[in-house]
Amino acid sequence: MTVADVLNDASAELHVDLETIIENYETLNAQSNAACAAVVKADAYGLGMEKIAPALFHHTECDTFFVANLVEAVKLRSILKDAKIYVFNGLFEDHVDTYLEQDITPILNDPNQIQFWNNKKQPCGIHFDTGINRLGFSDKHAEEFFNSKRNLNIDLVLSHFIQSEIPNHPSNEIQLDQFIRVRYQLPNAKASLCNSAGIYLGEDYHFDLLRPGIMLYGGNPGLPKRPDGITQAFEIKAKILQIRELEAGMSVGYNSLWTAPEKSRIAILNVGYADGTLKTSDRNSSVYIDGHIAKVVGKTSMDMIAIDITDAKFDKVTVNNFVEILGSNITLEMVAENSTLGHYELMTGIGRRYNKIYNLRA
Amino acid sequence: MTVADVLNDASAELHVDLETIIENYETLNAQSNAACAAVVKADAYGLGMEKIAPALFHHTECDTFFVANLVEAVKLRSILKDAKIYVFNGLFEDHVDTYLEQDITPILNDPNQIQFWNNKKQPCGIHFDTGINRLGFSDKHAEEFFNSKRNLNIDLVLSHFIQSEIPNHPSNEIQLDQFIRVRYQLPNAKASLCNSAGIYLGEDYHFDLLRPGIMLYGGNPGLPKRPDGITQAFEIKAKILQIRELEAGMSVGYNSLWTAPEKSRIAILNVGYADGTLKTSDRNSSVYIDGHIAKVVGKTSMDMIAIDITDAKFDKVTVNNFVEILGSNITLEMVAENSTLGHYELMTGIGRRYNKIYNLRA
Repeated sequence: MTVADVLNDASAELHVDLETIIENYETLNAQSNAACAAVVKADAYGLGMEKIAPALFHHTECDTFFVANLVEAVKLRSILKDAKIYVFNGLFEDHVDTYLEQDITPILNDPNQIQFWNNKKQPCGIHFDTGINRLGFSDKHAEEFFNSKRNLNIDLVLSHFIQSEIPNHPSNEIQLDQFIRVRYQLPNAKASLCNSAGIYLGEDYHFDLLRPGIMLYGGNPGLPKRPDGITQAFEIKAKILQIRELEAGMSVGYNSLWTAPEKSRIAILNVGYADGTLKTSDRNSSVYIDGHIAKVVGKTSMDMIAIDITDAKFDKVTVNNFVEILGSNITLEMVAENSTLGHYELMTGIGRRYNKIYNLRA
Repeated sequence: MTVADVLNDASAELHVDLETIIENYETLNAQSNAACAAVVKADAYGLGMEKIAPALFHHTECDTFFVANLVEAVKLRSILKDAKIYVFNGLFEDHVDTYLEQDITPILNDPNQIQFWNNKKQPCGIHFDTGINRLGFSDKHAEEFFNSKRNLNIDLVLSHFIQSEIPNHPSNEIQLDQFIRVRYQLPNAKASLCNSAGIYLGEDYHFDLLRPGIMLYGGNPGLPKRPDGITQAFEIKAKILQIRELEAGMSVGYNSLWTAPEKSRIAILNVGYADGTLKTSDRNSSVYIDGHIAKVVGKTSMDMIAIDITDAKFDKVTVNNFVEILGSNITLEMVAENSTLGHYELMTGIGRRYNKIYNLRA
């Protein structure tokens, strides 16, 4: 194996199925007559914007992307010359030139930012807050804005849900009513309210542009179940570094948190909390190997975990075998259940050391 | 600001003080007559191996580094041509050529790995397990090893503590005794037992080579207090994106977890759980701005948090101000106390979006 091969052989693998991301996009897009964009901030929720954004752009109707900050937008522009790119985090005065030069569309969040973009021909979005009270124009600033003179090419009006993953929560309708009021004052701009969960609130909420994030990748924003047609688009595999035979009473890992109740066979895998997915998950967590679930035992280390492969069903398991840490058998749901973290945090916490493998049929 | 400037202006900053890392190294090195190596796996615990390893190599006596896997080792070799580099995770057969070509020293963890390296002139390390039962030769394999014919140039014998951060735990002495027994059978190899906390167990434990990790960076492996001369070597700063005035009863963030008890002033910062340090920390956590502690309010978002700057002492705080998320005022200890995570996990969970700034006096 050459050095170049070694650099692509970190032995722990993040597989991202671009076909599944495309299918998830199609599922979301089919929920509505509205257009459908893609949120690819935070490196496409930890899975790799560089591969995912072009797959969506070239293989679906998706031509519009949302990122968090200008750095992400500039990186995306270098990959997709013709995509529409919006930046959520708002406009800093000293970034104006770069927005213009790179044809990136800022989303303006308060009156100061209006000043920085006034009299530009290039489009901008406006974010009106409807209750989450993070970014976006407050009611008071919105009123001032509508009563003020301005010269802006506004092509998008948006707001953000507080808890769209709880379909019957009264806040959804309250936010909808408030969004309708601002949206009607800017009838020439497209309107966008729906994140992933919002899409499933129904047609009244769809307006002109959907902007799902987590469901593109097959994560669940907190709905009772993942909707039909939304499939987890990634898996993580680790490699067995070593297999040990333990006598009853011998313990495994830092602080001896697990002790072998009988003669046991333990495999050591090359992923740990530095690889992200296992943080806070060293109780009752499991992996999948050779057709069976195996239990993680002992405390998660920085670079390793241990699994119990004592049972006869694991007799064929050997060093170098790959083990599913997260995938179709060890789902995000299962990992989240054993963690204090949700799907969003588990995904954006995926570490840097994986060999990333992207699948796209020709 | 040019595009190149923007790419270095992610607006959230990770400052790493290389001088402090050098001072921490000197503190650790001064605890013993043994030589002192540096553990720089997992990208130097999240802070950047590429800058930290050369700073130690060129400005201290440190000439030996430990990493987790061969990918990390090859990257380190490309930066430091003359350093001694050991790989903890053991030897895969198809990696042997790269180890030889790149002059990287494998640590052999079981009998199979001995076969892959036998008859090589180049040195290797051997890891003997003394109770943690992760990697390394078991007692049985060690006995077979000592009774077998072999042709190896062993330059390091090592083992790993179960709980060196608990100085009076009986396991430390048990491991020490066991390590002494194997170590005496390979008298020509250097012996290494001590991680950061192990160094503070005293001279009996030091042998020939210390190999601290977390304390180099100023983290605490779990000792009751950080030892004198060990200082947190990094800080994280975020920028204020927007400031909002709230009426009493208005809530902030997803699921409205915080509601303003009175007329309030809230600042929105550009770090969130995708940036890693705040995971699981949205209860009772704090930041430091303009000489004062401010409380984080509401649920942590992927790219944002909100802080309460209602009090008159924050009157001068404005948009674009930088806020200390982690540093000399908001210490790792404080963050860990509000988190389910420890120093190790908080550090290796630091996200990818920061503008990384390294300080080293000329």
